[in-house]
Amino acid sequence: MGLALVHASHYAAPMTRDAQDWFMTVVEALADPQGQRVWSIIVSFLGDMAQSDGARISSAALTRVITPIGIKPEAIRVALHRLRKDGWTDSERLGRGSVHFLTPFGRAQSLAVTPRIFNRASCATTDWHVLIAGTPAGLELMDAMEAKSTDTLVRINRHTGIAPGPAPRALSDLFVIDATIAAVPAWLQTELFPPSLHRACAAFDDALHGFGAPPVELDPLQRACLRTLIVHRWRRIVLRQPDLPESFHPVGWPGEACRKKVFAMLDALPRPRLLDLEQAS
Amino acid sequence: MGLALVHASHYAAPMTRDAQDWFMTVVEALADPQGQRVWSIIVSFLGDMAQSDGARISSAALTRVITPIGIKPEAIRVALHRLRKDGWTDSERLGRGSVHFLTPFGRAQSLAVTPRIFNRASCATTDWHVLIAGTPAGLELMDAMEAKSTDTLVRINRHTGIAPGPAPRALSDLFVIDATIAAVPAWLQTELFPPSLHRACAAFDDALHGFGAPPVELDPLQRACLRTLIVHRWRRIVLRQPDLPESFHPVGWPGEACRKKVFAMLDALPRPRLLDLEQAS
Repeated sequence: MGLALVHASHYAAPMTRDAQDWFMTVVEALADPQGQRVWSIIVSFLGDMAQSDGARISSAALTRVITPIGIKPEAIRVALHRLRKDGWTDSERLGRGSVHFLTPFGRAQSLAVTPRIFNRASCATTDWHVLIAGTPAGLELMDAMEAKSTDTLVRINRHTGIAPGPAPRALSDLFVIDATIAAVPAWLQTELFPPSLHRACAAFDDALHGFGAPPVELDPLQRACLRTLIVHRWRRIVLRQPDLPESFHPVGWPGEACRKKVFAMLDALPRPRLLDLEQAS
Repeated sequence: MGLALVHASHYAAPMTRDAQDWFMTVVEALADPQGQRVWSIIVSFLGDMAQSDGARISSAALTRVITPIGIKPEAIRVALHRLRKDGWTDSERLGRGSVHFLTPFGRAQSLAVTPRIFNRASCATTDWHVLIAGTPAGLELMDAMEAKSTDTLVRINRHTGIAPGPAPRALSDLFVIDATIAAVPAWLQTELFPPSLHRACAAFDDALHGFGAPPVELDPLQRACLRTLIVHRWRRIVLRQPDLPESFHPVGWPGEACRKKVFAMLDALPRPRLLDLEQAS
């Protein structure tokens, strides 16, 4: 909150050359090497800054926030069209422009992943249960649990998964076993945290490295832009990695170091109010 | 031991009509409904009564023991030929006949299954570990453990097995998890104790039912014959069933009731000395 107040009192201050350079350097470093999916970046923005019921952002403010990433206004219009078509967002005319907001469906989707994305804590679960399917009904149940959330079930193979906490009451479709996990072999670590995820996470961890603390002169639009970039990159990593303790991590797994850097940055870039984004220019 | 002495003092006594009838009734009831594989019956006999190094049985005595089952001397000669060819037994000339004995290979095979066949105790294991394979090397290791003994590993599916006791030190080829098993779903009970085994066990349990205690007048040959039949039938059941506690048994599983009857009968039919079999007529 202290930082937020400092920022709030500074955002209208003239930007120093150094702060502007820092901002541009970081934006460039954080741009997704896999290319930008604009609709996905907008989802990251809305999930972080406009998730609550009634929250809305104008085309003009959204454009101001994400233009520094190198996204053209036309690409934003196309992405918003796609999000509307897919039921994620809706739009309304307001004055000479439009405002955009998550639909109940879009908000539910966003809420469902928010705890994972904004989870600062490394997994420290020690009690697990193993679930083994041996019938079509059991496999279907396991698929449903896995689809619900990767926190509910981490699949080890087609017939087997592990889930945190003690075993539930007997499930007739699954063989459920209370389990304590001491060691995880390397082949399973690599299966759960595959090389492509490892590389993506290491690249993001590298990109986050060595910026130092954000200058206090950053304005709400710049903070929103940086938060969007960070949440977006982190979302694409953290939602692909199962929430498992250190014994499951491959040697050199950068995920937990990356998590620390993500939250250090987000903490130093307080979430701006939507009003500030609308009023900034 | 008391019973053994009673028998020893009675075996030369004249057989009563009742005892002879009892013997014939039981032999008929215990004859394997699946038909007799003579070589396998001989293996059962040798494993029970001639397993030790140096133990040997003449053709004449072996014929006297198993003829009441309805096996012809010619079938015994063929079976002994097959056992020799397969390396299980060897034979030597002795006087006007032959004596037969387990080879070191045959004895090793027999010894390997003796603890399972003669295990009076129901499984009461509470500590287990789950083993999960995810690589060709892991599957090979699991196959090898299973081949060694079904006590070492009970396969749940191709990639998963459970084994009694605490988890061994980390195995790099397998994911090993300490486990407590509270409940086993019906589909897994049926998979582990399939209907064909269930039927075979129930039929044997029925066959063992209602004979009462063996008459003391039974002679060593008759005791040997009955022991051979019982060990043979039980061997074919107990080696097919995994050694698992009650929670794994299907509803109505007759295995433990059958086990009790098997050992009640074997205890009441003391193992005769080979010398007594050779000297009986």
